[in-house]
Amino acid sequence: MTKPNVTRIAHGVLYVTDLAASRRFYVDLLGLNVLHETEGALYLRGVEDREWTLKLERAPQAGVKHLAYRVHDEADLDALVALAEAQGLPYRWEEELDRPRLLRMQDPFGVPVAFYARPVTHPWLLQEYHLHRGPGIVRVDHVNVMTPNVKGMVDWYGDELGFRLSEYTEDDQGRMWAAWIQRRGSVHDLALTNGRGPRLHHFAFWMPDAMSIIRTCDILAGARQPESIERGPGRHGISNAFFLYIRDPDGHRIELYTNDYVTVDPDFQPIRWSLNDPRRQTLWGAKTPRSWFEEGSVMEAFGGGWVGERESDLEGLPVHVI
Amino acid sequence: MTKPNVTRIAHGVLYVTDLAASRRFYVDLLGLNVLHETEGALYLRGVEDREWTLKLERAPQAGVKHLAYRVHDEADLDALVALAEAQGLPYRWEEELDRPRLLRMQDPFGVPVAFYARPVTHPWLLQEYHLHRGPGIVRVDHVNVMTPNVKGMVDWYGDELGFRLSEYTEDDQGRMWAAWIQRRGSVHDLALTNGRGPRLHHFAFWMPDAMSIIRTCDILAGARQPESIERGPGRHGISNAFFLYIRDPDGHRIELYTNDYVTVDPDFQPIRWSLNDPRRQTLWGAKTPRSWFEEGSVMEAFGGGWVGERESDLEGLPVHVI
Amino acid sequence: MTKPNVTRIAHGVLYVTDLAASRRFYVDLLGLNVLHETEGALYLRGVEDREWTLKLERAPQAGVKHLAYRVHDEADLDALVALAEAQGLPYRWEEELDRPRLLRMQDPFGVPVAFYARPVTHPWLLQEYHLHRGPGIVRVDHVNVMTPNVKGMVDWYGDELGFRLSEYTEDDQGRMWAAWIQRRGSVHDLALTNGRGPRLHHFAFWMPDAMSIIRTCDILAGARQPESIERGPGRHGISNAFFLYIRDPDGHRIELYTNDYVTVDPDFQPIRWSLNDPRRQTLWGAKTPRSWFEEGSVMEAFGGGWVGERESDLEGLPVHVI
Amino acid sequence: MTKPNVTRIAHGVLYVTDLAASRRFYVDLLGLNVLHETEGALYLRGVEDREWTLKLERAPQAGVKHLAYRVHDEADLDALVALAEAQGLPYRWEEELDRPRLLRMQDPFGVPVAFYARPVTHPWLLQEYHLHRGPGIVRVDHVNVMTPNVKGMVDWYGDELGFRLSEYTEDDQGRMWAAWIQRRGSVHDLALTNGRGPRLHHFAFWMPDAMSIIRTCDILAGARQPESIERGPGRHGISNAFFLYIRDPDGHRIELYTNDYVTVDPDFQPIRWSLNDPRRQTLWGAKTPRSWFEEGSVMEAFGGGWVGERESDLEGLPVHVI
Repeated sequence: MTKPNVTRIAHGVLYVTDLAASRRFYVDLLGLNVLHETEGALYLRGVEDREWTLKLERAPQAGVKHLAYRVHDEADLDALVALAEAQGLPYRWEEELDRPRLLRMQDPFGVPVAFYARPVTHPWLLQEYHLHRGPGIVRVDHVNVMTPNVKGMVDWYGDELGFRLSEYTEDDQGRMWAAWIQRRGSVHDLALTNGRGPRLHHFAFWMPDAMSIIRTCDILAGARQPESIERGPGRHGISNAFFLYIRDPDGHRIELYTNDYVTVDPDFQPIRWSLNDPRRQTLWGAKTPRSWFEEGSVMEAFGGGWVGERESDLEGLPVHVI
Repeated sequence: MTKPNVTRIAHGVLYVTDLAASRRFYVDLLGLNVLHETEGALYLRGVEDREWTLKLERAPQAGVKHLAYRVHDEADLDALVALAEAQGLPYRWEEELDRPRLLRMQDPFGVPVAFYARPVTHPWLLQEYHLHRGPGIVRVDHVNVMTPNVKGMVDWYGDELGFRLSEYTEDDQGRMWAAWIQRRGSVHDLALTNGRGPRLHHFAFWMPDAMSIIRTCDILAGARQPESIERGPGRHGISNAFFLYIRDPDGHRIELYTNDYVTVDPDFQPIRWSLNDPRRQTLWGAKTPRSWFEEGSVMEAFGGGWVGERESDLEGLPVHVI
Repeated sequence: MTKPNVTRIAHGVLYVTDLAASRRFYVDLLGLNVLHETEGALYLRGVEDREWTLKLERAPQAGVKHLAYRVHDEADLDALVALAEAQGLPYRWEEELDRPRLLRMQDPFGVPVAFYARPVTHPWLLQEYHLHRGPGIVRVDHVNVMTPNVKGMVDWYGDELGFRLSEYTEDDQGRMWAAWIQRRGSVHDLALTNGRGPRLHHFAFWMPDAMSIIRTCDILAGARQPESIERGPGRHGISNAFFLYIRDPDGHRIELYTNDYVTVDPDFQPIRWSLNDPRRQTLWGAKTPRSWFEEGSVMEAFGGGWVGERESDLEGLPVHVI
Repeated sequence: MTKPNVTRIAHGVLYVTDLAASRRFYVDLLGLNVLHETEGALYLRGVEDREWTLKLERAPQAGVKHLAYRVHDEADLDALVALAEAQGLPYRWEEELDRPRLLRMQDPFGVPVAFYARPVTHPWLLQEYHLHRGPGIVRVDHVNVMTPNVKGMVDWYGDELGFRLSEYTEDDQGRMWAAWIQRRGSVHDLALTNGRGPRLHHFAFWMPDAMSIIRTCDILAGARQPESIERGPGRHGISNAFFLYIRDPDGHRIELYTNDYVTVDPDFQPIRWSLNDPRRQTLWGAKTPRSWFEEGSVMEAFGGGWVGERESDLEGLPVHVI
């Protein structure tokens, strides 16, 4: 069986309860570009994106509809169907704006994922600098999923979809608490964080530089909503990225992220961090708020409703929590 | 006779021929805030300004209506009237929006200047970061006047108005080609450049940092008008500022400027630059376009029409011209 | 009696217990320039300083020897002596490297202050960019003193030395908890913070931009001493500055500070902040660690030993403390 | 025949005539890290590089010894040998520090290239921020070769080594004047520029952000060698990168480069630029100095001496030259 060739993380679809409030947050303050707008949904993108990368869909309850990856071509979708059949994973074909053929699956860990090969693309805004708004968000970078089975997900995404490990957190018993895995030569397309799950921990955008992240803080402060700033700005030990975590009006967590490194070398050795190394979370020593470890967005089940969540056997928070 | 106590450069009033085009340039691209708007004029300011600092007034021909300074209080206006009377300088009282008592004078070198003490002020936008647009222009910083009599102007503004010299350019014969003079402890409120004049060489705004100047270049490029960028970005030797010169739709030259230094110390020694030291113009060695040395905005005469211009006895361009 | 004309805050002399450790912190990591070095002291400056602005003097216990202001000329020193005589304040003449005539006084609140007119100056390093080290600290900006008598100090420094109020924090009963006062047209030369005192809350340097402050965090993290980072980076509501507070090996607090605003206008209205407005401390909503409110450096008494400290009648911490 | 799997551009070896002068430039000013040093050579790297990426070797005349690519594993070296045999390209095995098995070839266009699979790696300096020097150069990014046969090189590197086209410049007759080709999902590992050749046009490093490039200009200016700055800083139309071109003491051209975009998508459409579109060279409209089009570094022939150069049939400079 040919292994599907996954290109990269491609989009997220989030359910939001108040589309007007979401618009104020994502468009008026964060400056994301509205590629399409319907009565019930906003299709957003950064200035480098040639397709929408974040869809906000109005719903009675906030949650994650699915997280989608691009694959190399249509044959890879067939390979994914074969994988789903072989492993008894639920799947179906869906239609989505600009993605005429979207394969919706449930991974073995309950995460609603989707795959597509050829989207309708649109001229980017990269060099339309006069149209950039807010801090100038560039492109989708990665997603982070909370799961009670980090090691299991790393193995499955590695074995079946060819994801490679960049960094990971391990305790003294060799148990994996978190992992960063990738397909496109960056630090990660997908991060996995130990915890009750599956839930979405965050959806992340690439930023032009650290100053644009500082400007985001100022913009949120100017709009009198500093409570949207959950954690940061700071410098991650893991990934080396300059980061900021913010919460949207429904509590979905968005990371603004820049300055990581390249992982294309075949001899790249995954970086191991000890669970109790405080440099892991941030090089600067700032404590992480408890909410960051405990809260996440629920995920839609394949047949409707929300995926049942399971607690993790790995209990306890790292030491550096406020 | 009490010497008038001048506080700082305060505003410029420029005649423009196409107010809509000016609006696109100054408001849509540069992001200046419109404090007032009338059928014939735009009153603009940066995010730190509590009053308008640049007025654009529609007129059949582009030029400079006047350059205005704030004085400490009303008594200083009386002192200025006494000075005008003593020296036979033309003056009159004018009314201007938010400046109920504006003293319009002509300095001995033909420059249309104005003075006022107490403007109507408005809440600033400094911490309304969500309302900042474009590169986030901060405040008026200085003006630069071309004149065939740099030394005469330095002496008069020093003797009569208390301006102090920060830096100057001199040739081997000890003749002054350019000077930077100040009242508020910065490098300059007023710069004087040798050349046919009097003309306005440029009007300058303070920027939050060098990156905001880089963003201005990108914004003008995005709008497909790179020809608005006349010189820079670069690092001045004089003033140490990071700078950019742009030209508005009427050809008025605007400098975006940041990162100079403090001059409040009474033992501050004016910095002398040799005319042929290329570090003077820019530390990085880039050549200066000829237009930058030759072009400027005409100035309104006291009785109407334009001030007669005189060629300078100091002829020739510095060596580092394109 | 002529009022002394104070120019600006000029230098601090701190006692440190391990000069080698201080050197690693201030020189190797922060990149301050060593203007002079003796067996028992380091004389440091930023790249714009033409004289040393921070002296570290080896002593058995850490503390503050004095905080010094420049005055306009020698006659102002005489005026200060007259003031000391009139008010019964202790004073004496001291000699200090590059300051041949230093007037050491004790202000009425127990703060060891000094004044001088004409220092020996040295070529600055402003344009010697190839010699800048670390984050490129620019110049001394201000000092902050903890005192149980903020209002008293504001009045005395205002009445006797001509300091002007920029911003202040007040509770519902109209009691002043903190104040920012200035002589040079910036937000402050001297800040006053309510608390047990007199103690030095912090000594502050001006930075070239926000990114240089981010780099400082990275440098301290690289050197494996994130515990030196006490608070920030962040954006103050008061002063609008981008800030970082760090602690030196003796616990002296240093602020790195940039992006405040100009206060030269005579009609500038001091900005009032309510004590319980969290935007005051930081626009971004980050909580302030308790140590920042409680810890400070002891100050040397005029006759030797440490100044006796007094608790403040204004008790309690603001609400936004970790 | 299996196609060799090239990972990315990996290193350059440049001949320099004065190793001490090169050290001052690359190490003292640009802050590159010296990984190894021998009597006759310096092995340099950026803070993210785990191996040396620029070797400077003392020689009687300046030139390029070779440009090297990493391949996926040793089998790819065998595939390259097979390619060389099949096409009659000269090759030999060489030893180089930290690269025990280096395949030196001559491509069909006379360019001295080398390939290797597994280097000896070293701990990176990415998070040793206290050890970063100068502007903080990050990693090797790409090389640019001048050739009279741009189209031929694009075809050969594409057909034989799997390089993909990102952007290209074409005239009205459909002739390719320049091309950017890549293996690792960035804009380019290798750029090809029309002109007499083969010669090295430049060797490029990735920078942390645009401000670090501005700091490079200041550092070179501080060291009184602005003549090292040949072109920029500016914003490329092609690649969207913020760039600076500098010349080392032997005239080798180094580009400092940041802020391009990601090209991993299989449906990425190469961007075509018209030869006479000035936005191609720079979005900001600055003219390019003639030297940038005309000068390059000679390349070593396989059997010693320099590769014979050929003029291009495509004659004439673009219009926007100083």
